[in-house]
Amino acid sequence: MEKKIAVLGSTGSIGRQTLEVIEALGRGYRVVALSAGSSDELLAEQVRRFKPELAVLSDVEAAGRLGNRIGDTGCTVLSGNEGQLQVAAWPSADLVVLAQVGFSGFGPLVAALQEGKKVALANKESMVIGGAILERMGLLDREKILPVDSEHSAIWQCLGGAGPDVVSRVYLTASGGPFFGKTKAELGAVTPGQALKHPNWQMGSKITIDSATMMNKGLEVIEAQWLFDLSLDQIEVIIHRQSIIHSMVEFIDGSIVAQLGVPDMRLPIQQAITHPERLASPVECFNPFGKTLDFYPPDRHNFPCLDLAYSAAGLGGTMPAVLNGANEIAVAEFIGNRIGFTAIPEVIAGVMESHTIIETPGIDDVIAADQWSRRKAAEIIDLQMGRMS
Amino acid sequence: MEKKIAVLGSTGSIGRQTLEVIEALGRGYRVVALSAGSSDELLAEQVRRFKPELAVLSDVEAAGRLGNRIGDTGCTVLSGNEGQLQVAAWPSADLVVLAQVGFSGFGPLVAALQEGKKVALANKESMVIGGAILERMGLLDREKILPVDSEHSAIWQCLGGAGPDVVSRVYLTASGGPFFGKTKAELGAVTPGQALKHPNWQMGSKITIDSATMMNKGLEVIEAQWLFDLSLDQIEVIIHRQSIIHSMVEFIDGSIVAQLGVPDMRLPIQQAITHPERLASPVECFNPFGKTLDFYPPDRHNFPCLDLAYSAAGLGGTMPAVLNGANEIAVAEFIGNRIGFTAIPEVIAGVMESHTIIETPGIDDVIAADQWSRRKAAEIIDLQMGRMS
Repeated sequence: MEKKIAVLGSTGSIGRQTLEVIEALGRGYRVVALSAGSSDELLAEQVRRFKPELAVLSDVEAAGRLGNRIGDTGCTVLSGNEGQLQVAAWPSADLVVLAQVGFSGFGPLVAALQEGKKVALANKESMVIGGAILERMGLLDREKILPVDSEHSAIWQCLGGAGPDVVSRVYLTASGGPFFGKTKAELGAVTPGQALKHPNWQMGSKITIDSATMMNKGLEVIEAQWLFDLSLDQIEVIIHRQSIIHSMVEFIDGSIVAQLGVPDMRLPIQQAITHPERLASPVECFNPFGKTLDFYPPDRHNFPCLDLAYSAAGLGGTMPAVLNGANEIAVAEFIGNRIGFTAIPEVIAGVMESHTIIETPGIDDVIAADQWSRRKAAEIIDLQMGRMS
Repeated sequence: MEKKIAVLGSTGSIGRQTLEVIEALGRGYRVVALSAGSSDELLAEQVRRFKPELAVLSDVEAAGRLGNRIGDTGCTVLSGNEGQLQVAAWPSADLVVLAQVGFSGFGPLVAALQEGKKVALANKESMVIGGAILERMGLLDREKILPVDSEHSAIWQCLGGAGPDVVSRVYLTASGGPFFGKTKAELGAVTPGQALKHPNWQMGSKITIDSATMMNKGLEVIEAQWLFDLSLDQIEVIIHRQSIIHSMVEFIDGSIVAQLGVPDMRLPIQQAITHPERLASPVECFNPFGKTLDFYPPDRHNFPCLDLAYSAAGLGGTMPAVLNGANEIAVAEFIGNRIGFTAIPEVIAGVMESHTIIETPGIDDVIAADQWSRRKAAEIIDLQMGRMS
């Protein structure tokens, strides 16, 4: 039986690696729909290589150019949000890989789940912001949503189908980022250039800064909560500098199961795609001989983003959306050299303090909260910069 | 549904810990039959505490004393090998824990499997010596045989039901014992007292010496081969001084799954008893914070017992029985201060070299090979001692 796959966000880092994995798997796996934002040239190349039935770009003009580029292929071209939803619900697809960035991934996630499809989920925001909504909609089916993040893939593999009732604790591992061990004073002086150098993973700049502030791990805590039906006090963050153990599950009987591997996203991508099978992979294996693995508690004092995320998750409602939105603005302003590294959590905390939570929000409420938090963050930063200049 | 359990070897170290685990589990687990060798006093205590339907001692006189001690309980008392087989096949038992030491565990293992019972297997010799025979008898049902050894329990948990076709490698962890890092010259001078001090595990003296020579790990390689249907080149021994990771499985997709925990036999015992459930345990959990785990290759040159075991497993037939028998004699003679530490592998190698393998032996053949190897080992030691004096 051939597995037919739709990939949303196919021109981004995870999307490109997903196609690489599918190509390496070869027979038995076929791409039936692809989508991206506006990269018509790369998407056209992917269409020629993978021969999907449908290709979609959010950008209408770019979609027009795509249509011209691949007019001879017989591939249907669509555009806009509506097109993305078509990719997610594409009838011939068994599995939908959600690899786009941002909360715009939520609509396609809902569409795919409503069509009963399996979803390989690399879109963090849809869980962080929309997890509670999905649960209320009855769509949080843990047989259907397969995590693509390395940490969540590790937890999923360690659980081996076990439920949260037999889990005493999940150890979510964190590399600690480039600034592990630094003092608050030292952190005040770090530059975007320093923050963009991650010790173990090659990633986009937003997630690399999130890794340096530990917000990435905070967002992963929230994601883990929804993906595995865990309570927040079942999720513990642990610093593991080597990024070899991707997470661990401690069961109520005292046994801990851990998943290890080289830091390579193609591993969790392939696991989600081939599940429940395991197939050979071209990725090199971790060789443990001569290696050392160690573990430390996170520095919650100097990296307050972690506690901000736990706090937002505990408060619930619209607060995780506010956390995420404020963080995106603060990180962009840090990369743009307009605020310092330690201002990132200050801005987020300021926005969270000003927010009036909607306890059981709908999709429109979280979108509004997200937009409000971005405006509020910009406002706080303007005030600070006013003070600074 | 209550799980009814028979325990063979209930007065030994694993047997006593098994009863401790069953007692801590409480409701839902009931002991229906117990057996031991000759410890009538302790077995009588166990009968009063656990109220089994049947109690057996191999020693006929001790069984008589047991009958007198518990005449008022209504518990049936039997003796001898026949009695042990009755415990293994006891009609009301769902699960048989095989915790006795030595190849005498093989008969009860066969009896239990032939009655379709699940077996929690702590008896190493029955697999090392009898694995091939069990396979030919069609009794190596991997759904029925649940390992109790910490390493094999780890592999079993890491596999999570996966078969050998998706396993690229099993890393069988070894503490390295008290003499890790010593040179051959240093090893020549070690005393039984030094060898009996294991860094991490409290065990009997035979297995502690086996741990110092690495023969224990060699026997575990052979056991793993049969328990998990692995080829020898799928099993790799790795030194892990901390004895926290109890083994790891590398899958063909490059993912490694490891099982961790404090070194406490009650963990693997409980996992075998409660399988497929996980239940709370009084055993403390491993706390990873501040801990370091490291890995080294084994020193095959100075600890040749490991390669002798691989060699015996590869040769097959009666050779594993010969390896095991010669090792038992050599270890006893080392504990008795009659041969040196480095003579242990020399004696075993000498016996193996003299052995004419029977390729597809029956039970009588392996018993004869075991007896021959013990005589041959004693003969080699006598000759050496003759040279030495």
